[in-house]
Amino acid sequence: MRTQQEHALVADALASEGEVGVVTPQHLCFPEGIELVCGQRLAPLEAVYETYGTLAPDKSNVILLCHALSGGAHAAGKHHPNDRKPGWWDLYIGPNKALDTNRFFVICINALASPYGTTSPLSIDPRTGKPYHLNYPPVCVTDWVELERMVLEHLGIQQVYAVVGGSTGGMRAFEWAMRYPERVRKALVIAAPARSNPMVIALNHIQRQTILMGLKHGGIEGANRGLMLARMLGHISYLSEYALWSKFGRDTVPETDFWSVTYQVESYLEYKATTFLQRFDPFCYLYITRAMDNFDLGATYGEGDLRRALARVQAEMLFVSFTSDWLFPPAGQQEAVEILQSLGKRAEHVIIDSPWGHDSFLVERVKPQLKPVIQRFLES
Amino acid sequence: MRTQQEHALVADALASEGEVGVVTPQHLCFPEGIELVCGQRLAPLEAVYETYGTLAPDKSNVILLCHALSGGAHAAGKHHPNDRKPGWWDLYIGPNKALDTNRFFVICINALASPYGTTSPLSIDPRTGKPYHLNYPPVCVTDWVELERMVLEHLGIQQVYAVVGGSTGGMRAFEWAMRYPERVRKALVIAAPARSNPMVIALNHIQRQTILMGLKHGGIEGANRGLMLARMLGHISYLSEYALWSKFGRDTVPETDFWSVTYQVESYLEYKATTFLQRFDPFCYLYITRAMDNFDLGATYGEGDLRRALARVQAEMLFVSFTSDWLFPPAGQQEAVEILQSLGKRAEHVIIDSPWGHDSFLVERVKPQLKPVIQRFLES
Repeated sequence: MRTQQEHALVADALASEGEVGVVTPQHLCFPEGIELVCGQRLAPLEAVYETYGTLAPDKSNVILLCHALSGGAHAAGKHHPNDRKPGWWDLYIGPNKALDTNRFFVICINALASPYGTTSPLSIDPRTGKPYHLNYPPVCVTDWVELERMVLEHLGIQQVYAVVGGSTGGMRAFEWAMRYPERVRKALVIAAPARSNPMVIALNHIQRQTILMGLKHGGIEGANRGLMLARMLGHISYLSEYALWSKFGRDTVPETDFWSVTYQVESYLEYKATTFLQRFDPFCYLYITRAMDNFDLGATYGEGDLRRALARVQAEMLFVSFTSDWLFPPAGQQEAVEILQSLGKRAEHVIIDSPWGHDSFLVERVKPQLKPVIQRFLES
Repeated sequence: MRTQQEHALVADALASEGEVGVVTPQHLCFPEGIELVCGQRLAPLEAVYETYGTLAPDKSNVILLCHALSGGAHAAGKHHPNDRKPGWWDLYIGPNKALDTNRFFVICINALASPYGTTSPLSIDPRTGKPYHLNYPPVCVTDWVELERMVLEHLGIQQVYAVVGGSTGGMRAFEWAMRYPERVRKALVIAAPARSNPMVIALNHIQRQTILMGLKHGGIEGANRGLMLARMLGHISYLSEYALWSKFGRDTVPETDFWSVTYQVESYLEYKATTFLQRFDPFCYLYITRAMDNFDLGATYGEGDLRRALARVQAEMLFVSFTSDWLFPPAGQQEAVEILQSLGKRAEHVIIDSPWGHDSFLVERVKPQLKPVIQRFLES
């Protein structure tokens, strides 16, 4: 329990926070494209990124922020003052926020295969003049890191103060510390392990197969409904039973339909999936979930031996997990932390007691617990 | 930890077990049918059941066993000596097994809407001469209990020594103790709460909508693929991350396909779903999962007040949960047990430490823990 004084301190800290205001996405084009791990070249390559705060003359204050599955480069602020919602991590980015833009220059780059501007399955395949769709090449977390490296180098940034990410963004942050150990001073990995577990693969398989079944039998209309169902499953894997009880319990809707929606939780899932469909794409979803499955740092950097792989790390690392996260349970992160510590690396694991599941790092009421953890790590 | 002597006792107990041998399903017809809770009458009504052991002359040794979602009346033994597999709870039914057929007369009745013989969406609708499919009436757990009561009364059985069930079978066992308190001496509820939680409803919603999407876009072929995907999701909700790690880890298959099967866990899910499709039906699945969602004893017997509902119970009750069950976590059962105890009822909760998830009651290696718990309860 917090004392009244501590409560007041937290309240003060939150009260003094500012906003990043209106931001403009930046576009880059690499005409020569990118050589992917699968051996294919994706060219031309466009990349979209956003930045918040001011780059120090010596470029020593860069935080590379990595977005999760359904996120994009738009992490904070608004594109237009009338936007209903700010970027996906506005809670944590801004003046006096955890990623304090008075001090840090935060950059977030849209990942390959994500539908938010970087070349994706929705982009035009120059060979056909039509969208890539399933002709887009397979991508992996390593490719995501490579794109980020290319964008940073284009901006003249050779080293980052910190790389930060949650979920698949956390995978990216972790891989940065492995792939470019000398370029990362600190790595903050939130709710992401060193490798995807078979529960994640199983859930992703069902989600992909649902989209592919829709596509097979119902074309784009079917694929879209498949994406909605995939999102519903993904969505509940980010939540917890407690979260569903506290939001919906067993409440029913006023006009029930036996085969569609009887319960509030069903109505909520359908509504959220409808809004997701408006902003996402089934083909992108297929590629990104497969990249997630294939993430295995031990395989990529240690020939199957995670300990050998982790020996590469030079950054100071902080792992954050949430007690109720059943997609990437704390045990997965703990395994990595224990190996790092046994190797004499600077690694710490903070397990936050939160009933809100995997998505806790996006939930406002977890902020009083998570913000000081991030601040302490970034400012030490 | 068990002592060596205790290990020897367990080994002895298991070694002396016998088999029920070859069994024959029994058929019953109720020409007048059944009046369902929804107000519709389902007629004619056929019911299939199996029995194991010998009915005592005074009928005092009846155990009503209730099967789960994908089970049926065939709980033990084989229909033919060459059958590859015995009934679904053969581990626990037979001479000197937990449901000891030297002493008890065990009866298991196939539930309404299940495809194993009792009138279901696959049966011929006498009004059309075609299978009911979506013209089958909505059924609920209460209807399942009523069918069981009708079969028992047909056999002249007015009271049962015990009612036993796991998962949706546990819901039925629980409802028996509420609906017919004077007819049940003991009720054993395994991995089932007093009401379905919103996580269950959410998972079932996705499963149903996947089947319905398949049906809409791909007819019966699509519905069948939808059923496979629904089963995959159901299946992983009965397991645990630990179970998936220990069975598959991140192992890949020899011939990988980027969009279908790369990992062993995917291959396993596809294989299990294929065998499920051979023995189950998408329409039945729709009806049974909705019955599961709608299960809420507080609503049915207490006008929304579970305490008021549980005041009806007269039976001695045992609830068994498994630590790693994330579909019906122990907390759900604990809530009911605490209310029952506070009402002065004879109710106990045994939480078995098992890493195998919801399906632990079907897993052979949990038997050394579960068998003595059941025996102690039935033989006290």
